[in-house]
Formats: sequence, structure tokens, C-alpha cells
Amino acid sequence: MGSTFGHLFRLSTWGESHGGGVGVVVDGCPPLVALSEADIQADLDRRRPGQSEITTPRNEADEAEILSGTFEGLTLGTPIAVLVRNKDHRPEAYSEMAEKFRPSHADYTYQAKYGIRNWQGGGRSSARETIGRVAAAAIAKKVIAAQFAPDLEILPYVESIGPLRAQVDPATVTRETIESNIVRTGDPDSVEAMVDLIKKVRGEGNSVGGVVACVIRNVPVGLGMPVFDRLEADLAKGMLSLPATKGFEIGSGFAGTEMTGREHNDAFRMREGRVRTVTNRSGGVQGGISNGEDLFFRVAFKPTATIMTAQDTVSTAWEDTELKGRGRHDACVLPRAVPMVEAMAALVLVDHMLRQRALKGG
Amino acid sequence: MGSTFGHLFRLSTWGESHGGGVGVVVDGCPPLVALSEADIQADLDRRRPGQSEITTPRNEADEAEILSGTFEGLTLGTPIAVLVRNKDHRPEAYSEMAEKFRPSHADYTYQAKYGIRNWQGGGRSSARETIGRVAAAAIAKKVIAAQFAPDLEILPYVESIGPLRAQVDPATVTRETIESNIVRTGDPDSVEAMVDLIKKVRGEGNSVGGVVACVIRNVPVGLGMPVFDRLEADLAKGMLSLPATKGFEIGSGFAGTEMTGREHNDAFRMREGRVRTVTNRSGGVQGGISNGEDLFFRVAFKPTATIMTAQDTVSTAWEDTELKGRGRHDACVLPRAVPMVEAMAALVLVDHMLRQRALKGG
Amino acid sequence: MGSTFGHLFRLSTWGESHGGGVGVVVDGCPPLVALSEADIQADLDRRRPGQSEITTPRNEADEAEILSGTFEGLTLGTPIAVLVRNKDHRPEAYSEMAEKFRPSHADYTYQAKYGIRNWQGGGRSSARETIGRVAAAAIAKKVIAAQFAPDLEILPYVESIGPLRAQVDPATVTRETIESNIVRTGDPDSVEAMVDLIKKVRGEGNSVGGVVACVIRNVPVGLGMPVFDRLEADLAKGMLSLPATKGFEIGSGFAGTEMTGREHNDAFRMREGRVRTVTNRSGGVQGGISNGEDLFFRVAFKPTATIMTAQDTVSTAWEDTELKGRGRHDACVLPRAVPMVEAMAALVLVDHMLRQRALKGG
Amino acid sequence: MGSTFGHLFRLSTWGESHGGGVGVVVDGCPPLVALSEADIQADLDRRRPGQSEITTPRNEADEAEILSGTFEGLTLGTPIAVLVRNKDHRPEAYSEMAEKFRPSHADYTYQAKYGIRNWQGGGRSSARETIGRVAAAAIAKKVIAAQFAPDLEILPYVESIGPLRAQVDPATVTRETIESNIVRTGDPDSVEAMVDLIKKVRGEGNSVGGVVACVIRNVPVGLGMPVFDRLEADLAKGMLSLPATKGFEIGSGFAGTEMTGREHNDAFRMREGRVRTVTNRSGGVQGGISNGEDLFFRVAFKPTATIMTAQDTVSTAWEDTELKGRGRHDACVLPRAVPMVEAMAALVLVDHMLRQRALKGG
Repeated sequence: MGSTFGHLFRLSTWGESHGGGVGVVVDGCPPLVALSEADIQADLDRRRPGQSEITTPRNEADEAEILSGTFEGLTLGTPIAVLVRNKDHRPEAYSEMAEKFRPSHADYTYQAKYGIRNWQGGGRSSARETIGRVAAAAIAKKVIAAQFAPDLEILPYVESIGPLRAQVDPATVTRETIESNIVRTGDPDSVEAMVDLIKKVRGEGNSVGGVVACVIRNVPVGLGMPVFDRLEADLAKGMLSLPATKGFEIGSGFAGTEMTGREHNDAFRMREGRVRTVTNRSGGVQGGISNGEDLFFRVAFKPTATIMTAQDTVSTAWEDTELKGRGRHDACVLPRAVPMVEAMAALVLVDHMLRQRALKGG
Repeated sequence: MGSTFGHLFRLSTWGESHGGGVGVVVDGCPPLVALSEADIQADLDRRRPGQSEITTPRNEADEAEILSGTFEGLTLGTPIAVLVRNKDHRPEAYSEMAEKFRPSHADYTYQAKYGIRNWQGGGRSSARETIGRVAAAAIAKKVIAAQFAPDLEILPYVESIGPLRAQVDPATVTRETIESNIVRTGDPDSVEAMVDLIKKVRGEGNSVGGVVACVIRNVPVGLGMPVFDRLEADLAKGMLSLPATKGFEIGSGFAGTEMTGREHNDAFRMREGRVRTVTNRSGGVQGGISNGEDLFFRVAFKPTATIMTAQDTVSTAWEDTELKGRGRHDACVLPRAVPMVEAMAALVLVDHMLRQRALKGG
Repeated sequence: MGSTFGHLFRLSTWGESHGGGVGVVVDGCPPLVALSEADIQADLDRRRPGQSEITTPRNEADEAEILSGTFEGLTLGTPIAVLVRNKDHRPEAYSEMAEKFRPSHADYTYQAKYGIRNWQGGGRSSARETIGRVAAAAIAKKVIAAQFAPDLEILPYVESIGPLRAQVDPATVTRETIESNIVRTGDPDSVEAMVDLIKKVRGEGNSVGGVVACVIRNVPVGLGMPVFDRLEADLAKGMLSLPATKGFEIGSGFAGTEMTGREHNDAFRMREGRVRTVTNRSGGVQGGISNGEDLFFRVAFKPTATIMTAQDTVSTAWEDTELKGRGRHDACVLPRAVPMVEAMAALVLVDHMLRQRALKGG
Repeated sequence: MGSTFGHLFRLSTWGESHGGGVGVVVDGCPPLVALSEADIQADLDRRRPGQSEITTPRNEADEAEILSGTFEGLTLGTPIAVLVRNKDHRPEAYSEMAEKFRPSHADYTYQAKYGIRNWQGGGRSSARETIGRVAAAAIAKKVIAAQFAPDLEILPYVESIGPLRAQVDPATVTRETIESNIVRTGDPDSVEAMVDLIKKVRGEGNSVGGVVACVIRNVPVGLGMPVFDRLEADLAKGMLSLPATKGFEIGSGFAGTEMTGREHNDAFRMREGRVRTVTNRSGGVQGGISNGEDLFFRVAFKPTATIMTAQDTVSTAWEDTELKGRGRHDACVLPRAVPMVEAMAALVLVDHMLRQRALKGG
């Protein structure tokens, strides 16, 4: 409960930032899909800290080991377990946190909920937990490509860093552009200013948030299960389950609330033998079901809670106190959030593809 | 699958807008909670069409019948089935829709997904489906009050209608204020302009969207299950599963992405023996778990897709055509969205309360 | 929770023996399957009391109403709700049971578990609850025939009544034979003795148990999900969830424990281009997965707990007392258990067919 | 799907007999329960091969490593991952199995279901998979003792080996007696004959089955969720999910079908302030809910399919052929089945304890 996601492509992630490791078990992956550790490693490398000058300096290789579920390079249809050992232990860096709750972190709520917490580096609430998701999603993407939608592209990119907003056309942005810069924005002209801003706030011991936008192309028509498991509902859940997220909008989103129906409706037209919409305010989903247009959504990430400033807080002895940030400091999570958003999108899509195949065959 | 929600307090809604009726089965309601049909009817009346001059004229009494699960006024712990018959059938009003897909409705995607659809009045995608949710939530609220949090208040209100934004302080808004006006806004000064705007767009055969904000007070600490079933993730899913929703944000939301960590972090202080935060940019949830502060979130509703204008569309024979809106026309769903948001919030909360009781006792 | 069954073809039954009615919601039925109320009614008639001189005299028409999920005679892919009203209320017949727990009934355990019970006629523990299962299974059988295995036959039959054992060859028994006699045994020569025995024990105010055997022919290879959701595990759960059941065995069952491996193993041979086994001690399932041979299993039903004799028991005031049976008295549940076993088998099979289609397509 | 068990105490097992290892993730374990690797190791040692002269000679230490979910000796409430590496690889011993299906094994059905199988030593269908269950159950037993029923005892024992039946009184059998002999029977007088029989059939390259009976004492009243998740239904599912099982019966079981209701009913009497039954034909469960009496059930295990005799079979090229058994040969699984039955019982019980705590508090 809680660490399990998906109805048919079901993953269970496990692990704390300090302990034996982190990982995932995927129960429900179809058989006969080509899969190697290299497939997983590529995405883990995009997620891992220390990959560039603007990400957290925690530096771990994050090497994935597939423990089960494959045979001679193919999935068996049985559970796939992936293990990544923890290596860069520095629990002493967190000793103060044993006794003080870091503001806007999960320290206090974990303590209150469970009556216990692993205070070393965030424990289960660490972004390190997302390793399991990214590993599972690497498998999901192989399944999608092999069995459902070979041309499907999931392209998240940084749309804004603090007040700096990139100019990106979701219809044309490419993975090459996004991965060509360390911010992972889709707008090359914004990169320099964004890097400068991140370095500046880091230099001040401060942090900054931002928005990841995501376009998904070549989505099959018919994904999504009304009424509760609408495609946008499951995407919203997946995104809001990522650390540091505060919002999700699809298609026209909050801005669309200021439009009239006449402005907002997407007219249908036949185009090359397919039903298409002339505009895409719906963001690729109508009535909870994909309509074949690009899926488009945005995810809000708050500024990292770890800052290098003295802050008012409370101790585990329930007294007012003060905490000065120490330890590793990721001034901006956005560049590393891109593969996390991609992972959750892939996990939602593969699950709905399997559900639709159950319902309709094919 | 798809029409089932909740892990322990599990509801299955059923029914189309035209057919035998709509309803819900709640499997997992604790025993010994006082429950009558009047408890359910009160919320159905707030949800039903035709309740004021600015809601859709479809006029149904929507009378709830409890078919099972109670005995001598108390819940039995066994499934509670609630039935509401459909009465105001006018299938002839929808005959054109049998052959043409209404733009930005679910007609095309249902047809594409299932290969069939009930084209009478929206079928399963009709807002009428939410009757089952509202009925289940009425039960959920009784459970919460009786067994978990007697003082808990769920207070959604209309924050904006199109470009008109109400001035509401979530810390002080009351149910009396909200229910005292037909818009269900928390700002009495905005009512007249909002009513005028809705009437104006309706007169033009047009429609308008808006935002529902929701504050929840006296929430127990410790609700939410990391990592996937975070409280905000389940709230996001619940809200995005409502018809016409396009966005969700909690606490600082999208605006918070422009703040620095120093501005955004919520300092802790002891107040009256409890851990409190000085600010509440977190929106009452940290690390996916409620921290005892007010939950605060916003939900974006797009303008109603039904408009009285000729629109380009496609026929079921896959040819370009034109459709002129007919039938009932709800120019603005916001006033009726308020009890729907309230319902989904109650359903998410009661499920997490039961899950926390399983985990920790109490 | 508890009243929900199935992973993809998911049903939620509801209702007590006295109250508004009983019914079921099926969430996950594929679209485009022909379905009418007559399809459901036929099986309800086989299940209902009062159908012959050896079943309980409670006489209800048990008329099924489909409330949702179909349109113009086809399933929509959305939830199908079926309602059967209760009519033959005689709560006064049960007044003594309000204050005394009937031995070997569920009265005491429901009271202990929930702190409350509907003491009218067994409430939720009544065999009347199986109406929902039988209705859902009627739908399941239509799905199986239309989309998965048109020749599949589920043939449960009464193998024994008390000490009387029928001589039936599962390989050749037909539905015609089974349905041609009111006992629903597969052995015409046993009918008279079995009817006589049932009448005799009824005349004595006593009751008798028995065994239902079930053969299922033309089962697709590959159904069942190792390791927990093995086909025989889900069948066992389904059967043991029926009222009055005390045992389940598949293939060689308990008798097979006395054989050696050399005697027990089923050799493989190619026959008409298919892999077949020469014997079928496995009962059609190996490693939790169907192997294409006939599924064969047995279900033990205890003698009905309702007897017309004074019995020692305890009152709701927690004092020793005595209870003399009254009310309707079904001296032998076996004839009516046949359609119940058939229902649970169909529900298990359809769910695994959908799961296998999700996994492998087709 | 398939490798996941439990609703609140949810485990996902993974791993094949040859590969990186086997293990389990437990999602839903309550926090603050004392847990060490030694707790798990003790049960793994009872399950492992090579522990005595009558079990399979595969000899692995099966060392458990807890990778997550504990901190300073206590559970955290977050997922607990347990890993056991595979060490005794001898894939060459299985080379013939790459091309021939072993009769009454899962080779053919796995191939048919998935289109692929790991043919080394049984892959996922190996009894080695039960390591994950036994590890999870060791955790479950700690939870039960710490939070629910400190005096609860789960006592499975070997009741029969082939035709040899032990004389055991379930009311008085002790763990000391059971664990004092390598057969794990509850009847010291039967041990010698049983050991001799196992040695004899092994010497003949043959195998033998048997029955494990299980008594569970000091079970809280009220466990089990009608109507589908009855306690006996979930026990039946758990037991039939174990390799080589063919039957399950509770209380009077199949023998009870030959009794009349007057003989079978369990009269109630007040004893020391508690409601008790005078007899226990119900096996501790009535209406799907535990009544506080001893749970008592039996599980049938077929003779091991691996025998050292030439057998008719079919090749992966779909031709008739012959296979002579090789590799390790466990002539009788019963002694090692005892901890497996114990494991599944503990997993079912802990899940229902958590579900009941959710429903009623406490």
C-alpha cells in the first residue's frame, strides 16, 4: 500500500536514501520484450545526481542490477526486480536532523505518521526513491515501443526556472534539443540565463522552483478508463506523487478557465482519414480518454526545501529551535525532474495500454 | 475497473444519463454509523440541476433510495447500495448526436474506445454520473464525523468565473457564506457580477469556466501514504476525475514555482502544544502526508462544451459536418461543481483515515 | 472491501435477505457483447428457491432489472448494474433470532465482527446474496462465449448427497442430463434415492450436505497467473467464498496424496497437433496455469445449519439458552449450489481470460 | 499481478530458481515492530533444502538480507525488501529440460502462456520462489505478536505421507513435538515409518505426497470479510497458491458432507465469560468470520513431479519424446511444506487483522 503503482503493470518501489539500496519490482510486464541492464542504466544516468554543474553534488554511479524476470535478453512475464545499491553514505552529515525537523521537508510528517523515521538524508522521502520509478519506466518504454506504439515519444522539458520562462513550441520540440543542454529546457536561447540563475541561488544558499511541460506524441486513441481512472486523473496522480510537486494542468489548464466555450472547444475535422481536432485545448484527452492528439500537460515543482540559511523550526523534543542547512544542496531540481516526469508518464501510459488491450483485444 | 475508487472505503458508481438510473455501491464503510436517506438527499439537492436560475434547466428530484447496508438507522459494515432513478428522459433532444460527435465532449473518444456509446445525453460521461460520488461522499462525511474528525470542515467555493475573481480568505470563509449565494462563491461582493456574467454567456448560447478553491480545516496529522498514494496525489486524481476539470494545484501551486526556497519554506513553531507552521505554502501536506494545517487546493474547470453555436465536427460516418448545439445547456458548471469537489475530497480523506487506522490503530 | 471480486472483470455484490433488494455492479465488462435481462433471468431461475419440491419453499420470482451498462442490446463497456428486489419479506418469522444466535450460522460472528447485524433471515450471510454473483456470471458467460471460448462448457453437478454417491463420468456428462433432474446430479440412476433422502431428512427437521463436482471443457491453454493468482488458487477462493462450503480439491485432490509420482504424473503426447496429457490427475492445471485439458474440481457443502430441532445456544445477552428452528428450512442446498458453483467458475475464468489478453494480446 | 498477495499487508515476491536471486517486497507493514535478519533467517532455515536426510540435496545457505524498511531494529512503516542470492547454480543439470517438457511440471504451461520460460531448474515455478513468502511471513508473525495476538500459535504438521497417517490431536499438539522430528509430523510414533517410506521411494527414483494439517490457536474473533474475502476463502487461496497443492478443507471438510445438520452443528455455550462452541466442526470460522475457536484446516500435496524414471513427454519442437529424470530430486515435499503452510496462514491472518483494525479501530 502506498508504494505500489499501476493496475496491470504494477510496480512496488522500496528503499531509503541511506540503507541497503533502492529498487523496484515490476509485476505484470508482458513477456518477450527485449530488455537489458543498459536500457535501464541510460535513464538512471539522466536522473542521477552529479551529472552536471547545476545538479546536486551527491555522486553515485547508481548501477542497476536486474535480479529476475529476464532470460536470454527477453522478459519472462514474471516479476522483474531491479536493485541499485546505495554507496555514498554520509550519515554524519545528517546528525543534526536526527533531532530537528527540516522546514518544508517530510521529517515532521513522517515522524507524526509512523512514530519513527530514518533521519539519514530524507529516508524514504528522498528523491533517491525515484530510482525505482525510473527503472520501471525504462522497462515500460520498451513494452510500449515493442507492443503498442513504436512511434510514441514522451518529451518533457523545463519550461521555466523561477521567473525565467522558456519559449518552446510543444509541437516541434525534439529530444535532441532538450538533452543538448544541462537544464533540459526546450529553448536553447534560455539556457544561459537559467544556468546563471541556478548558480546564483545556489551561491546564496537558496533554491528555486520551476515548471516542467510535457508533450507526448503518437498516443493511441482510446486510452483512459472513465470515470475515476481517466487518463488525466492518473497522470495527475502520477505527477503529484513525485517529490516537490505542487500542481498539474492538462491542455488549457488554469488559463482555459478564463475562456468561453466558443473559444475553448476543439472543432473536429477529418484529416488523412483520421478524426483530428483543429485546436488542442483539450490537451489530447476528452472525457478521460485519449483522442489521438498530442498529450500536453505541465507540472509545478516548488523550490527545493534544503537551503543554507538558519531557519526557525521545532525539535523532536517539541521545542522551538533553529536549523542551519547542511549536507548536499540541490538548488534546483528541475533538470533532474525531467526524467522523473517522463517516467511517471510512461508508467501511466503502459498501464492503460494493457488495460485497453484487456478490454478490446489487439 | 475505472468506475471504482478507494482502497478501503471503496465505491463503484454506475449509470448513464439516460437509462434505468444512476447509483453507487460503497464496499468498506465501517459499521455503526448513523445514516439515513436524508443525509444523502441533502447533498444530492446541492448537486442537482435546476436548483437555481443559473444552473441547467434539467429538473429532476434525484431521490436517493438506500437499498442495503443499513439496519435500524445504522450502517451494518456491509455494502451500501444507493439508487437514484432517471426520470427526465428526453432522448429525442439528442437524436442529432447519434450521428455527430459534439466538439470537446466525450462522444468521439467513447466511440473510439468502446466501439459503442449511449449517445443519449452524454451517457456515462454525463455529469449525472457524479450523483453516485456525491451519495457515497455523504456517507463518507458521516463516517469522518463519527469516528475520525468531528470538527473537520470541507469548504470548497467558487474562486473565479471566467475572468471574474472573488476575494476570499480561506482562513475565515464559512459554509454559510458559500451556501448563501447561488454561485457558491465565498465573496458576497462578487456574486452579482458573477451571476450577470453567467446569464450573459448563456444568453449568447456560450459558456464559461472557472476555478473552485477548497479549504479543509481540522485535518488530522498523518494522512497520506508515501510514495504513490500521497495525499495530494490522491486529491489530484480525485479532482481530475471530475468532468470538465483541467488542473489541480495545492498550496502555493504554480505561483510557488516563482519563489525561492527562502521565501517558500514554512517555518515550524510550537503553538499551544502542537507543531504548527508559520506560513502554509505547503497547503497542509508535506512529503505526501498531512501536517495538521489547513489543506488548500484549487481545481480548474473548463467552460462547458455544450454551446448553442454551429460548430465544425465529424459524423459517425467519418465525414466533416456541422453541429448546432441543442438540448439542455448549462452555461457554467461551477456552482454545481462545488459539491462535487467536496465529494471527492471527502472520499479521499475517509479512505486515508481508514488506511491510517489500519496502520497505527486508534 | 470483501464484497468485491475479480481484478479486471470486477463485481461488487450488495444486499441483505431482507431490505431493498440484492444486486451487483460489474465494472470491467468488455463492450459490444449482446446482453439482455433474459440472459440473466435464466440463471437466476436455476438458483432461486421454490423451484422444485426439494428446495426451500421461499418463493420469489427474483426478477432481474439491468439498470445500466447496456444500450440497444449490447454492453457499453461501462458498469452494468443489476437489481433484484426483495419481495417475500417475513421478518416476524425471525424475531427469535434477534435475541439468539443460531448455531453454525453467521449470527454470532457478524455480531462480534461488526457490533451489529441484520437478524432478519440471515442478512448479508443469506444465500440470497449469491443472486448478485449468478447475475454477474450470466454476463461473464456471454463474454466468454463471444470473445474467448465459444465452446467452453462449465458443467457442475451433484456428486453426492450425504452418503449417497452418484456414478458420473466427467468426460461425458451433459448439461441435459444434469438439468433433467431436480437434484442436478449427473447420474439418472441416483436421482430417486437422493430425492428420497432429502425428503426424509426434511421430514425429520434435519438437513444433509454433499459434494458438487465440476468439469469445464474446452478451456484455453494459458489461464492463471503464477504465483499467487494460480487458476486453482482463484477457483479455491471462489468456491470457498460460497455459503456452506468446507472444502475444495482439484484433479486428484486428497486422494492423490496417496499415490506415488510414477502413478500420478500425467505423460504428455501430441494428439491432432496439440499437446495433450494421457491422464488428467492434474485436473487441467499445471504450475497454476491451464494446460488445455478439462478442468475438474470438487466442492464440499456442509449440511444446512437450519434444523427444526431444539439446540443449545447463547443469547445476545450472553446467556446460555435454547433455540428451536423455525422459518424456512432448506434441508439440502446441493441442487441450488450447482448454479452457484457454475457462477464462481465463470467469474474466475473470465477474469483470467481478460488478464491473459492484457498480457499477450489476441 | 499474480505475484502480489494481500490487501493491506501486501507482498510482491520475485525471482527464479536460477538467476540473481529471489526475494520479496512487503508494502504495508506497520511501523515500530522489532525486526532483524535473524527473525527471517530462522524460518528460511526451516524451509531450505538440505536441512535433513529426507529433503532435497540442493544445499544453499539462503541468507536473507533486509535492504530497506527498518531503522535501528524497528520497522519504519515503509516497504521492506528482502533479498536472498542464488548460489548453487547448476544450469547444466537442466539442459535436457530446455528441449523437453517435464510431465506434471509447469514447463509446458509456462511456455504456452508466456511464449518463453527459464528452463533452468523450474524458473519461477520452483519451490525456491516460496523463500519470499516465508520471509514476508516471518515479518507478519512479528506484527501479529506485537500488535494483535501475542498468544496466537500457527501449528502446521504432517498428517500423512502417502498412505501413512499420523495420529495427532490438534488440540494438544505442540511446536516442540513437530519440530523435534525431520518429518515435522505431530505424532512421534509415526516418524520412523514415514522416514523409511520417504527413503524407500527416493531409492526407487519415485516420490510420494501427503497432507499437512494446521491448527491455529488464540485467533481473535471477527477476522474475515464477507462475502468474497471470507477467512476460509483467503486461506484456501493462499494454500492452493503453494506449489504441488491439490486440495484444501476446513473443519469437517469433505467428511462433513456425510453428516446431518443435527450431527454437524456446533452448539454455543458461555464458558468463562466467552461465547464458545461445544464442538468445532466449523473449524473456527462461521459465515466467513473467525469465531474464536481454533482454526483447523488440511492441505493436500501431490507427490513431487520429479522422478528418476523415463517418462513419455513432448519436446519444444512439438514431437513425442521421452525424458529421464535428472537433477536434484526431492522425493517428498511434505517436511518443507510445513513452514510454507505456516507462512501462507500468517500472511492471510495479518492482512485480515489490519483490515479489521481499519474497520473497527483498536
